[in-house]
Amino acid sequence: MELKNILRQVKEGSTDLVNAENQIRSMGYVPVSDIAKLDTFRKYRTGFMEAILAEGKEAEDIVEIVRAHNETAGRTLITRINEEQASAIRNAFKPENIEWDMHSRTAVVHDGTPALKTGGTVAIITAGTADIDVAEEARMAASEMGCSTIQIYDVGVAGFQRLISEMSVFEENRPDAIVVAAGREGTLPTVVSSLIDAPVIGLPVSIGYGAGAKGEAALLSMLQSCSILSVVNIDAGFVAGAFAARIANSIAEARK
Amino acid sequence: MELKNILRQVKEGSTDLVNAENQIRSMGYVPVSDIAKLDTFRKYRTGFMEAILAEGKEAEDIVEIVRAHNETAGRTLITRINEEQASAIRNAFKPENIEWDMHSRTAVVHDGTPALKTGGTVAIITAGTADIDVAEEARMAASEMGCSTIQIYDVGVAGFQRLISEMSVFEENRPDAIVVAAGREGTLPTVVSSLIDAPVIGLPVSIGYGAGAKGEAALLSMLQSCSILSVVNIDAGFVAGAFAARIANSIAEARK
Amino acid sequence: MELKNILRQVKEGSTDLVNAENQIRSMGYVPVSDIAKLDTFRKYRTGFMEAILAEGKEAEDIVEIVRAHNETAGRTLITRINEEQASAIRNAFKPENIEWDMHSRTAVVHDGTPALKTGGTVAIITAGTADIDVAEEARMAASEMGCSTIQIYDVGVAGFQRLISEMSVFEENRPDAIVVAAGREGTLPTVVSSLIDAPVIGLPVSIGYGAGAKGEAALLSMLQSCSILSVVNIDAGFVAGAFAARIANSIAEARK
Amino acid sequence: MELKNILRQVKEGSTDLVNAENQIRSMGYVPVSDIAKLDTFRKYRTGFMEAILAEGKEAEDIVEIVRAHNETAGRTLITRINEEQASAIRNAFKPENIEWDMHSRTAVVHDGTPALKTGGTVAIITAGTADIDVAEEARMAASEMGCSTIQIYDVGVAGFQRLISEMSVFEENRPDAIVVAAGREGTLPTVVSSLIDAPVIGLPVSIGYGAGAKGEAALLSMLQSCSILSVVNIDAGFVAGAFAARIANSIAEARK
Amino acid sequence: MELKNILRQVKEGSTDLVNAENQIRSMGYVPVSDIAKLDTFRKYRTGFMEAILAEGKEAEDIVEIVRAHNETAGRTLITRINEEQASAIRNAFKPENIEWDMHSRTAVVHDGTPALKTGGTVAIITAGTADIDVAEEARMAASEMGCSTIQIYDVGVAGFQRLISEMSVFEENRPDAIVVAAGREGTLPTVVSSLIDAPVIGLPVSIGYGAGAKGEAALLSMLQSCSILSVVNIDAGFVAGAFAARIANSIAEARK
Amino acid sequence: MELKNILRQVKEGSTDLVNAENQIRSMGYVPVSDIAKLDTFRKYRTGFMEAILAEGKEAEDIVEIVRAHNETAGRTLITRINEEQASAIRNAFKPENIEWDMHSRTAVVHDGTPALKTGGTVAIITAGTADIDVAEEARMAASEMGCSTIQIYDVGVAGFQRLISEMSVFEENRPDAIVVAAGREGTLPTVVSSLIDAPVIGLPVSIGYGAGAKGEAALLSMLQSCSILSVVNIDAGFVAGAFAARIANSIAEARK
Amino acid sequence: MELKNILRQVKEGSTDLVNAENQIRSMGYVPVSDIAKLDTFRKYRTGFMEAILAEGKEAEDIVEIVRAHNETAGRTLITRINEEQASAIRNAFKPENIEWDMHSRTAVVHDGTPALKTGGTVAIITAGTADIDVAEEARMAASEMGCSTIQIYDVGVAGFQRLISEMSVFEENRPDAIVVAAGREGTLPTVVSSLIDAPVIGLPVSIGYGAGAKGEAALLSMLQSCSILSVVNIDAGFVAGAFAARIANSIAEARK
Amino acid sequence: MELKNILRQVKEGSTDLVNAENQIRSMGYVPVSDIAKLDTFRKYRTGFMEAILAEGKEAEDIVEIVRAHNETAGRTLITRINEEQASAIRNAFKPENIEWDMHSRTAVVHDGTPALKTGGTVAIITAGTADIDVAEEARMAASEMGCSTIQIYDVGVAGFQRLISEMSVFEENRPDAIVVAAGREGTLPTVVSSLIDAPVIGLPVSIGYGAGAKGEAALLSMLQSCSILSVVNIDAGFVAGAFAARIANSIAEARK
Repeated sequence: MELKNILRQVKEGSTDLVNAENQIRSMGYVPVSDIAKLDTFRKYRTGFMEAILAEGKEAEDIVEIVRAHNETAGRTLITRINEEQASAIRNAFKPENIEWDMHSRTAVVHDGTPALKTGGTVAIITAGTADIDVAEEARMAASEMGCSTIQIYDVGVAGFQRLISEMSVFEENRPDAIVVAAGREGTLPTVVSSLIDAPVIGLPVSIGYGAGAKGEAALLSMLQSCSILSVVNIDAGFVAGAFAARIANSIAEARK
Repeated sequence: MELKNILRQVKEGSTDLVNAENQIRSMGYVPVSDIAKLDTFRKYRTGFMEAILAEGKEAEDIVEIVRAHNETAGRTLITRINEEQASAIRNAFKPENIEWDMHSRTAVVHDGTPALKTGGTVAIITAGTADIDVAEEARMAASEMGCSTIQIYDVGVAGFQRLISEMSVFEENRPDAIVVAAGREGTLPTVVSSLIDAPVIGLPVSIGYGAGAKGEAALLSMLQSCSILSVVNIDAGFVAGAFAARIANSIAEARK
Repeated sequence: MELKNILRQVKEGSTDLVNAENQIRSMGYVPVSDIAKLDTFRKYRTGFMEAILAEGKEAEDIVEIVRAHNETAGRTLITRINEEQASAIRNAFKPENIEWDMHSRTAVVHDGTPALKTGGTVAIITAGTADIDVAEEARMAASEMGCSTIQIYDVGVAGFQRLISEMSVFEENRPDAIVVAAGREGTLPTVVSSLIDAPVIGLPVSIGYGAGAKGEAALLSMLQSCSILSVVNIDAGFVAGAFAARIANSIAEARK
Repeated sequence: MELKNILRQVKEGSTDLVNAENQIRSMGYVPVSDIAKLDTFRKYRTGFMEAILAEGKEAEDIVEIVRAHNETAGRTLITRINEEQASAIRNAFKPENIEWDMHSRTAVVHDGTPALKTGGTVAIITAGTADIDVAEEARMAASEMGCSTIQIYDVGVAGFQRLISEMSVFEENRPDAIVVAAGREGTLPTVVSSLIDAPVIGLPVSIGYGAGAKGEAALLSMLQSCSILSVVNIDAGFVAGAFAARIANSIAEARK
Repeated sequence: MELKNILRQVKEGSTDLVNAENQIRSMGYVPVSDIAKLDTFRKYRTGFMEAILAEGKEAEDIVEIVRAHNETAGRTLITRINEEQASAIRNAFKPENIEWDMHSRTAVVHDGTPALKTGGTVAIITAGTADIDVAEEARMAASEMGCSTIQIYDVGVAGFQRLISEMSVFEENRPDAIVVAAGREGTLPTVVSSLIDAPVIGLPVSIGYGAGAKGEAALLSMLQSCSILSVVNIDAGFVAGAFAARIANSIAEARK
Repeated sequence: MELKNILRQVKEGSTDLVNAENQIRSMGYVPVSDIAKLDTFRKYRTGFMEAILAEGKEAEDIVEIVRAHNETAGRTLITRINEEQASAIRNAFKPENIEWDMHSRTAVVHDGTPALKTGGTVAIITAGTADIDVAEEARMAASEMGCSTIQIYDVGVAGFQRLISEMSVFEENRPDAIVVAAGREGTLPTVVSSLIDAPVIGLPVSIGYGAGAKGEAALLSMLQSCSILSVVNIDAGFVAGAFAARIANSIAEARK
Repeated sequence: MELKNILRQVKEGSTDLVNAENQIRSMGYVPVSDIAKLDTFRKYRTGFMEAILAEGKEAEDIVEIVRAHNETAGRTLITRINEEQASAIRNAFKPENIEWDMHSRTAVVHDGTPALKTGGTVAIITAGTADIDVAEEARMAASEMGCSTIQIYDVGVAGFQRLISEMSVFEENRPDAIVVAAGREGTLPTVVSSLIDAPVIGLPVSIGYGAGAKGEAALLSMLQSCSILSVVNIDAGFVAGAFAARIANSIAEARK
Repeated sequence: MELKNILRQVKEGSTDLVNAENQIRSMGYVPVSDIAKLDTFRKYRTGFMEAILAEGKEAEDIVEIVRAHNETAGRTLITRINEEQASAIRNAFKPENIEWDMHSRTAVVHDGTPALKTGGTVAIITAGTADIDVAEEARMAASEMGCSTIQIYDVGVAGFQRLISEMSVFEENRPDAIVVAAGREGTLPTVVSSLIDAPVIGLPVSIGYGAGAKGEAALLSMLQSCSILSVVNIDAGFVAGAFAARIANSIAEARK
């Protein structure tokens, strides 16, 4: 594989570092039969790992893609796994090599390679109990990208005192970035961002019925927020968690 | 006019009260040339007065309608008055017979009849400075329906401490109903409704730009609220104020 | 539990009433494992009880939450219960402690504590037969908040004479507030509000097909109403019923 | 011109009537420079006349098109005329050859040819004063297609008694078809259609603000109506009036 | 029953005809347990019969409503019947008393009373094969209202020659009104209306996928039509058929 | 059949070619019982074949339509086939006469007639693995219209180097037209069109969740593209493939 | 400039053709102060020229950009020019170097370099007179890309005979591609595509009022078309004309 | 003012640091007459400064608010300033105390206090020339929050080589966070995020016409991005710049 060649050239001094980095950043991918082309070097290029969105993929294809990915990366995060895909994964890999999060239908398959530890910290806050599934997907992504995580669940503004009370945990354990998941009216990220000294990523959740249902009101409310937020798409737990971790990792690296 | 006849019959005993009330409730209106049919008895039938929405009406027609209305009611509330209509009103009526609210382009024209005093109290709260115009329309409506009003402006959740601090006014002066006006993400009614012991009417305001602009995010957010609210349309200050006053008047009447 | 302590202090005179009330209003909630934080004191703070929206919650979590809630409140209203959740509730509680409304998939679970009786009266009117399910959710909420209820169903304006005829019931039994549920074109709240002397809360219902289906036309029609209405979200029977009861209870309290 | 030839052949017996009618129906149009191709025979083919929508056309082009049209038809209806176009029309034709309706920005230009009289009757009803402009466009179209018209304006359901009272005019003068114009919540056509024995065409009007504004709520409400209606687009006064006249003319013809 | 009383009074001369007709028009309905209030006299008041929309109703309620309706009307049209409701109808009534249309999930249940024959003629045209289900609902409604019907199916403009060829049937058998059903781009009503001398009612059908799917493009296209059309909601076959029949019946009556 | 008569007349010289072509272009279709009218001559008239959209059709009707179509055309493309329809096709035709594409639920049924070979070349590119189903429908259409096809799958811009690398295949094998299928943000057609010297048809795919899901963002993004593209509807693989083949066939014909 | 160097190397044989072409395709752009980076070599890379969209640019910046572009290309197409920008262009360049199209607010500025002539032919058809402005933008783009153009204006389906009659021009002068511009219901491209043997690009135009206005109905209707079309965005005359010319040029080149 | 008291107590040791910080975080605001309540301590609480959105505020109110704000903060950022407001600012403050950015209608008014320098670096990239106005608002915000900024403008993917070439600036000058502004199809943030090792904030810009215009396609495209992005609302330059600066400042602080 080319990556090894490049690295050997670096070791031998036959290429300089800038050149090697550029090569790694622009060239690598691993074809998986005809159906996929794995961007295994994305982590080196952008700071984000490749993750497998199971939705819309055949169960056997996922297994094949995970195998190919683990060969270069050692660990693979898979999101939005359905029943049939979960069975295929269970059959294909040993139990000790799979870490499941049943709430969020997410799993990590690994070959024994331990998870990264970057020193970054990400907090995940939810407005309600029904937001936990999406929040857990964010937590899994942040965790897999090397961050430690703090969870505070069901502290929406209908009972405002709950948030104030629970936030005391931050006095000892300051998060580098915060993901706030909320459905229905999506108020919580606006309130959190007006109270806490860390960048807040709003994560709208597809709950609620009637006008503005399925996260629409929550998304619009976060985009219109008078507080300063950035936002990801409805239910995009992976994106929110990875983006928060990306920030936390930069800060952690700078701390070193 | 028929109302007087009905009342005289009541006085004379030639009709009973239930019958008289039913007649009043179902029959009265005053035609204004060919263009309007004034529902002057709405107040007796529904507890709401007739108000004149100036938007889309000719200036001279408004003057004519106001005159006709004042003949039976003594006072007329006019909303959403533009420059040209305002001039026509100024020319047609004496200054001492007009009460303007320039913020909300609203006026009351009267023939000396004083405003009603019902004993009800309505609070009007806004999230920002830009919500004040719509809030003032609500205040004028509540006031014209006989309520005393309390205003608390610019206490949105981006600076949450402002709301908490200002709400202390309610300890001595409990409102019977509260209108909360908010644009952009429309969070404030949700928060107020979770903190205060009075029915809250959410009033979305058409400010903000981008996705969910012009009050759309605020309206959806209020409809999706985890707190218990009822809502009126975007910028519908008159409806919000009148509805709040309707509640307050019922309570005030029961107090008597 | 803290509430008892506060009340004992009041009894003993070691705290004054304003202080006690403030404490109750701002501080109480009951954590239920990691998944929920019950706002059991909402009733004291806002006049609305906490209710459990079953939708999106695990069956066993609902049972656990209901148990925790009943410990402080004695009665718990649960809305939007699906088959599996209903079974779990049936297995967990005795039949004599459950009051079901099968139309609206709503239940009250209690420990023998009787429902409140406030003296308020709420009327529930529907345009069609298909609106009854949502209307019943409103009725359950109003009833659980202590109001007596009047139902008038299937009196939409396509056969206008039905409404006029049925409304005679109000001559003896005046409602303090009225919920009007309607799907499709949502005309009925506008008509009722123009005929009756009580505040009307429009409750759009998600029936109808084609453009404006699923309650969209009904919601927009109510927001645009020429009569004076406030509105709740599509199918939000609980919110409509609770809001109407909130008004009725204020009036009933003032009557005392 | 070909039409005359066809008619002469009919007179001479060199063609039969079915054949002549088919030729007329499928073949005629008059080119106006490069910019327009006038469908002057539409009336013979479909029962509807060609009308000129002024919106988006150059003032001088309109004058040229009207001239060309009048050569075969004698009268031309022009809708949605702006200031500049109105001046051009005034300059191009004699005052006695123009019939203006200033409300609806509509005019008929003729060469002395009198309007058709078919014996059909169309009623035009509006919910509010602001709907009159669009209603007048409908009236002009129905009138130009030969119908006599009845107008009943400002009888919306917020003051329901007005409609009932005014409808007595129909007892002597039965309309063959009814156009009901309404903005905001668009309730009136539903109510009229449930009370009157004639086909009702709903005409939504682009008034109102907030959600469902500009006729959206009115259109959806009419499409969802529980009464039986057909509908035209928002502000499409010409289409509503012409469609109603088309029905009335068929009935009138059958009466003969 | 009151209708008989009124008619007897007419016979006896104790009431005059105008009075009797007014009474019938404004007062009658038949309550069906608590769930429905049948508007059995709608036909006398508006020219439209009451029909039962099965969607959203319990199977046993439908049977009960049909029974009540047949007592005064002899025949009942039921639309949008699902499997379970169809079984209930089959069990409750004799086969010889039910007329099914399986395409459109529509049925007529009668007590031997034959269908009306008014002499009106309605044509039903579809653009594609997939529009037939909705078109058949329109045909059933027109037929039940007494019209004879002509069907021309699958003649959309992608193969324009099919329409031209099939329309020759109208030369001998002129329709009084035409329903044109079309999904996807909804072009056909525009083309038919520009070719045929009869009022056209556009009936959008909920087929198609992607942007503008489920009849949205068809509906908008018909509302924007350059030809003169009126429109009903997507899939509203019953409304289209009943409205067309209403026109045809007026013409047929005038012919007599 | 008329086509043969026309062709015989051409052979015999009793008609000239222009006349014959016009007749073929405007007149032919084959009725299939009452449910369909096959436009079998579309290919001669427009360069596109008739294809059968299975969605919304009865299984037995499809078989009947395919039989009728094959009689004049020899081969029939069927798209969007569901399980039940697939069984009916398998039972009705011999295996050697059916070519399935299981990804896209598409099949060709033939009577031994081989597929056309026009010499045109169409490339099909997808952004992700989940776009392959729709892309395959495009490939089947292009292939059935006589083009050879090149597939490049899973080369979206998140790993941009994949596209650059795979595009080298075009150096030897230049496509005449390119279909680019993409869901989610739909970026790939914009990038391909800015890099390659061939007309690009954007094919949005209904994947993705949250705001802009189901192909909406992809469609809008392609319509707004700064590169020069034309676009087809979401999931309209057949249209994209046929349109690309139509271009490629014109070029191939000109090359001859 | 680099292009000349590359070409010289080709001439001298110091580079091969494939290499030279690749260099040209991937590398060139011309910076214009800080505000723009002109992609002057797009024509070599994609077959489309760079055109200047004036909308949103400062007048003086446009002049500067045109100058820079003409240095490498000799001719520059500018679209959507407003009054102020037009003055700046008139002041900056000699009259004989500007070709205006006033309808579409489009201009070509050149340095005497004549327009390309490729031998391709593009037809531009409009449904109405109001579509001509957008159609002319398409014609300018096709013309500037070297095609001869055929215009057929105002032949919409409301007067179907006009289209049939005018299409006879295609018998002598076959177009390689056709742009069909239509607003309101957007029917014409569907009809044209079902009648003519050339690829049709649908161009929706932002006319019409009410639901589906501003080209929305036209766009959706074209995307849903039962005929085979590709589509560009509303009012995107330049894209439609350039895309049609791109096809026509490929065919013309193959003819050589 | 309270802040000084708190700080003095800290100095004197009469309060501890945690307590002092909490007080500052939760309590401070400065009322400006009745119209505004300035959250002057937001910076201490959340890391974001208070900025004045001029849109919708009276010119004199802005001046008053700026004065009040400068008393505690020394510098005030004002965004979306219109002509009239700009004059008022020019009249109220000395030229040397105002820093204008005319592109983005943004200004900083200060009392001589220099801008902060945090050591963070933010890059601002635009797809086109028309995105520069919004991008400059982001740059002003980032700059005012203490970051140095790098601008790369007009490097959209229609000419992809421009981006690659310009990005070489990052090799020496690594940004801590990147704002990518793009209108129309909004592709650029997706591409940048897939190539660069820094968190990317997508900033949709309200340019483009037709479907998806005014930034809608750009916003949806960024929310659906296959790359990992977070997003702010359309034209929300201030939010994007402040959020990017917030990240950069955390990293810069950690570097110290």
